Formats: sequence, C-alpha cells, structure tokens
Amino acid sequence: MIKVAVLGYGTVGSGVVEVLRVNQEIVNKHAGQEVELKYVLDLRDFPGDPVEEVLVHDFETIVNDPEVKIVVEVMGGLKPSYDFVKRCLESGKNVCTSNKELVAQHGTELLQLAKANSVNFLFEASCGGGIPIIRPLYSALTADKIDEVSGILNGTTNYILSKMASDGSDFESVLAKAQEKGYAERNPEADVEGYDACRKIAILSSLAFEQYVDYKDIYTEGITKITAADIKYAQTIGTSIKLLAVSRQSDKGTYAMVSPVMIDSSNPLFSVNNVFNAVYVHGNMLGSSMYYGRGAGKLPTASAVVGDLIEASKNVNQTVMGEGWNPKKLELMPLDEISGRFFVRISGSITEKLPAVEKVFGTVEPITVPSMEDEFAFITDEMTEAEYKEKANQTDGILSMIRARI
Amino acid sequence: MIKVAVLGYGTVGSGVVEVLRVNQEIVNKHAGQEVELKYVLDLRDFPGDPVEEVLVHDFETIVNDPEVKIVVEVMGGLKPSYDFVKRCLESGKNVCTSNKELVAQHGTELLQLAKANSVNFLFEASCGGGIPIIRPLYSALTADKIDEVSGILNGTTNYILSKMASDGSDFESVLAKAQEKGYAERNPEADVEGYDACRKIAILSSLAFEQYVDYKDIYTEGITKITAADIKYAQTIGTSIKLLAVSRQSDKGTYAMVSPVMIDSSNPLFSVNNVFNAVYVHGNMLGSSMYYGRGAGKLPTASAVVGDLIEASKNVNQTVMGEGWNPKKLELMPLDEISGRFFVRISGSITEKLPAVEKVFGTVEPITVPSMEDEFAFITDEMTEAEYKEKANQTDGILSMIRARI
Repeated sequence: MIKVAVLGYGTVGSGVVEVLRVNQEIVNKHAGQEVELKYVLDLRDFPGDPVEEVLVHDFETIVNDPEVKIVVEVMGGLKPSYDFVKRCLESGKNVCTSNKELVAQHGTELLQLAKANSVNFLFEASCGGGIPIIRPLYSALTADKIDEVSGILNGTTNYILSKMASDGSDFESVLAKAQEKGYAERNPEADVEGYDACRKIAILSSLAFEQYVDYKDIYTEGITKITAADIKYAQTIGTSIKLLAVSRQSDKGTYAMVSPVMIDSSNPLFSVNNVFNAVYVHGNMLGSSMYYGRGAGKLPTASAVVGDLIEASKNVNQTVMGEGWNPKKLELMPLDEISGRFFVRISGSITEKLPAVEKVFGTVEPITVPSMEDEFAFITDEMTEAEYKEKANQTDGILSMIRARI
Repeated sequence: MIKVAVLGYGTVGSGVVEVLRVNQEIVNKHAGQEVELKYVLDLRDFPGDPVEEVLVHDFETIVNDPEVKIVVEVMGGLKPSYDFVKRCLESGKNVCTSNKELVAQHGTELLQLAKANSVNFLFEASCGGGIPIIRPLYSALTADKIDEVSGILNGTTNYILSKMASDGSDFESVLAKAQEKGYAERNPEADVEGYDACRKIAILSSLAFEQYVDYKDIYTEGITKITAADIKYAQTIGTSIKLLAVSRQSDKGTYAMVSPVMIDSSNPLFSVNNVFNAVYVHGNMLGSSMYYGRGAGKLPTASAVVGDLIEASKNVNQTVMGEGWNPKKLELMPLDEISGRFFVRISGSITEKLPAVEKVFGTVEPITVPSMEDEFAFITDEMTEAEYKEKANQTDGILSMIRARI
C-alpha cells in the first residue's frame, strides 16, 4: 500500500480525488499496490463532502507524516506551493504537480532536489492538460535530437479564435461569451496575453532541448489585437490563425516565441479547434509527430496527475527523470534575428497603395476580401523580424501584422 | 557499457544502425551508458559497408554471447524471428522488435517469457512506426479506463485514399503510381486488404483493454472496392474516406473492425493525410486524445526501435511492462451485432428509386453529385450490421456501401 496526500481541493484537486475513487481498481492495478488517499489539504471546510474524512488544514500534518510517500500539489501559484513542494521533496516524498508556474519558475531546482533525495518531481499535467507529452519527451522520443516543439497550448485562446472564425465575431464579444460559459476566467489576462502558453513552452523547450529555458526570455504576444477582419483574410486564403507557442533549434541558435500565427492546412495543428490543445514535436530521425487532446479541464488534467502518481508509486525511491535538464540557462536568439514570413494588411486601394508597398517589400501578391473594400493584404517573403520592422517603418497604413508559417 | 545485436540488416535494420551512429551521443546519454553495437546478423554480405565489421551470419554467435544484453529483431515475418526472439528471451536478453506479425501472433507468450526471465520484450515500432503510442498506453494513460482505440494505421492505404481524393483517380491507377514511388509493395495485399492494420489494432487493443485480442477474430475489409465515385460523394458532403481500424469497449461488449469509414471534420483523424498515421485513444477521464506521425519509413521506425533499446538499457533486469496483458482471449462481439451508420449508393434516378428505398430504410436524405446522373446515395440511421444486411437484401441496385461515422 502507498499513501498519498493532495494539496488543494479546487477544480483539479477534486478531480484527482474523483479519478482515484472512480478508477480505483485500475489505479491500484497499474500502481501494483493499493493507493490510499490519506490527506487532502485545504484551508476551507467542505461540510457533507466525503473529503471531510481526510481533510486537514495544516500542511505540517502531511510533511511530518513518514507514511505519506507521494504528495500531489494542485493548489497553483507559487505561494505557498513552492515552499510546500520543496519541503516535501526534502522530506523524501515524491511530488506530482499540475502547476505550470511552479515548474516554469522553479523546475530546475526542484528536479535537482528530487534527484538529490532519490524521489520524483513529476509534472505531466502542467503542459497540455491530459495530453501525454512530458512522459513521451523523456521516455519515448529518446533516440532523437529534437529540433522543434511547438503547439497550441492554451484552450481558452484556441476556443476564442475558433469561435471568431466560425461566427465571424470580434475578440471582445467572443471573450465575453467564453467568460459566461466558464471557458475563460474573469481576469483573462494570463490566457489572452499568452502568458500561460509562454510558461508551458518554456517547460517543453527545457525538456526537449535538455537545457533550462527561462520563460521570461520568450517573446510573448497575445490574441487581443486579432480582429474579425484578420480572420476573414485568413479564411479567404484557406488558412487559420492560432496562438502558437514555437520553440526551434538550428545551427543559428534556439528561438522561442508565443504569438498569433497564420497556418495552412499542411500544418497538423491547422485543424486543432475549440478547447483542444496539441503539441507538435520534430526529431531528426522521427520527423514530425503530434500529440492532441484536452489541454485543460478537471478530469483530463486529473487523469494526467494520477498517471504521474502511478509512475511515482512504481518508482518511490528512484528518480525516473534523472537530474532533469541542464540548469545552465539556454540563451535564446534575440527577436530581431528570428526569420519568418509576415501577413500584412494595408489600408487604402490597391491601385493607390501597391506601388509604394512593392517599392519597400518587392513584388507581392495582393489579397483581397470581397466585402472589405479600401484595404488589401499580402504575405512577405521570408525575412528577419528586424528586416520586417525596418520595412514596416517605411510603409504607410499598416492595419495589422500577423506572423505566417505557410 | 551495454552491448547490442541487431537481427536483420534490411530497411529498418540499417535505419537502427544509422540512428545509433548519427545520434550516438544522445543515445548514450539517455541510456546512461555507452551503447555498443556488437553484432548485426544477416545472411547476406555487404562488401564495403562499415557494417561488415560487426556482421555475422550465424544466430548462435549472438544468442551464446553473454555480453549481448539487448537484441533488436527487425527481420520481420515469423520464421525464424519467432524462434530467435524466444531463444533470446530465454537466454536472459532483452528484445526490441518492429515486427507486428510476431507481436500479434505470439506477443502474449513472449511478454510472459520476458517477465519470467526478468527482461523486456518491447515493440513500440510495431504499431504506427515512429508514433509513440505503445509507451503512452502502458506508462502514461494509466489512470484511465480506455474505452476506445482507433486509428489510421497503414500509410500505404492512407496515401492511396488521399491521392484518390486529391486527384479524383481510381484505386488501380493510384496503386500503380504508389508502387512506382515505393509507397506500396509489389505485392500490396497485406496493406490494401487491411491485414497490416488488423494486426496493429489487435496489438493496440490487447494493450488498451489489457486482455489478449486475437487478430484473426477482427472483421477486416480493405480499400480495393473504393471507387473515385465513392470519394466524390464523400467530398460533396464534406467527409473523407479512411481505412480505419476501430476497437471499442462498452457495456454491450468489445468490438474491433478494420474497414473503410466515412468520417467528417469533427473527427480528429479527418485531416490525417498521405503516409501519415494517427491513433485516437479515448479514456473515461482523459476524454479524447490523438497521436500522429509517420507510421512507417526507415528512420521513424528505427527511432522507435532505438527508443525501446534505450528503455531496455535502463531496465536490463526489470520487466517494465510486467506480464503484459491478460492471456485469456477477449471475446469480440460478432460483426452482426455491431451498430453504426451506413453510406449507400443506389443506381437509378431518385424519382424512380427513392420510394422503394424509403420503404425499406425509412425516410432518407438523398445525396447527389452533379456530374453523376442516374444514381444517388444516402446515409442510414444507426442500425446493426445484421439489420443493414437484411435491408440491403430487400433493396435493388446498391452500387456500394461504406460505413459512416458522422
């Protein structure tokens, strides 16, 4: 038998308790032993909820109980999570977490601490909710040099962009509806500004490139400026706009970026819609692969946490991820040096404006949308961000720019 | 240091040697030790190829060398693979294979034999080439009761169907072109008749449901009868026709089937085209997930084999998959009891034939393709295969039937 404590009885925490209860038999079988939930920590009381039997309000009860071998941290945030997790690892307890902030901010240290104490610090649920991506990266795609990890890593923004595309609505009105439905938080900043995706791609990049990537170094742009007009253009040329988190390694260096990107149907991420998430991984032998599923939600996230819990229960005194990634920070390329293509919308008629645009950008193929007169768009050749900025400065009437990977 | 032998220097075998050479540093790092290729077994000679240094013609050299801890079997077929693999496991050597026939036919026994000898029998490359699906099933999706595994598991047929859809060509002409390009074998039966996909879904089902599924029990239908006309109808209603291998478990029982299926864009397998493969997995907590990548090819397959080799090298005397699935054969539902919808093409004009059709099938919504006069189609409500057969027997002029999952 192995005894477990859950820190936090919020959405994910109650999901973990539910998975342990409903799939008890499967969990025990896969763990090779009975898994017993000994404590749930929460400051609140839950009168009438069966959780009362195991509910405690004091973390010390858990950390000082030598019977507890695995601690599930699903409180979120850094305070007090960071201290709690650190103390658990130092006390020789395995920790499984869904907390992307914690992993992005302190993962390097916590992985080393786990190794030093011969326990595990596991975080499958921190990126892509229920999608198994962390374990494939460290245990399956091991024969490859991974040169790209990218993905749609935030369900809220993918839902908003999908809805904008299907309904032709503007960002603000779709956001309001998403908030009503509970698909977006009342304070949606972390999602719509790309901060959530940024932390996730930092974690995935650290794992894939096996060296610490600091999320603060990643250029991050959200979807708040995307308009119904932008999406009409995208649809006209058979593309879609996604909030992509991209991380690539080449001879020139490594870059990482979170931003809206126009992609076409040849990209496996093209048809990932609504709240679904997907992670694309490219290896030098494997080629392209993709992992798709529910990126958030109580039960999919809890399923990933409990998968970690089972992994930990089979390896209570053996650190399956080793020391983790190299703690020396991986220097990312400056934004200016990153190359790509750019979709650009220009105000004014083609006849009037195109000559000036072509003087700066060279020959372009203008794109028009029937219902939208007095403007047009084009997609640049590949150039660096610096080159684009310079050309954009010389161009009048730019309505919007979206990076294009087509 | 760990010493390895490769049985077979064909496409996959030479790929394995290439991955070990090109990614030597990564492989050693992930294995936690130096991985040395000690032998390659092949009956042929390869004058001038560096493999000559390790080439042997006699299996006894390998099986009798106690230094060899891991044997990679990439010869394919059952003879002599089965005997070789058995003897390796009995000699306490770990085995990694890409051989789906071997796993489908003898997997149950070989997994038990591996367990009895405290070694590993690993076969990530046997299903879906480079797509990590076996390891996620047994090591990541462990908190879930899996109730469905389905997928596009054969690259040749997916390429043919994709080409038929993009070019409007018939099966025979696309097959001929695929053979020219090397995407289809000269004897394409195993692919186009669905036998290859059948073995793969048997393996995936055994793993997902944790009980032995005999591939011989799986109803299997290939793509040879799919015509350009069928595909035109599919495109007209925004669907695509895929060779799907489906395996589902419900209160009614378990069914498995390989057949062409019409799917719409809400299905994550819809946009899996050309030689790409994908596996869809549904769990009771996780919901939907999908794994996508190159289902065949020298290097993607070799990447999966070497991933297994690394897993084995970290667990030389510990069976990571335990005893494998329950050896008692899982009884599948008879074909007649399986329910679904059916796309049916009828010869003749709507005015003339529809009344008779509706007398049998009830009210249907006829589908027509502008260029194809004197015929129409419809999609039935959900009914069992037996019910469909009975109704089809009462209906004149059925040109084709394709199962529909829309």
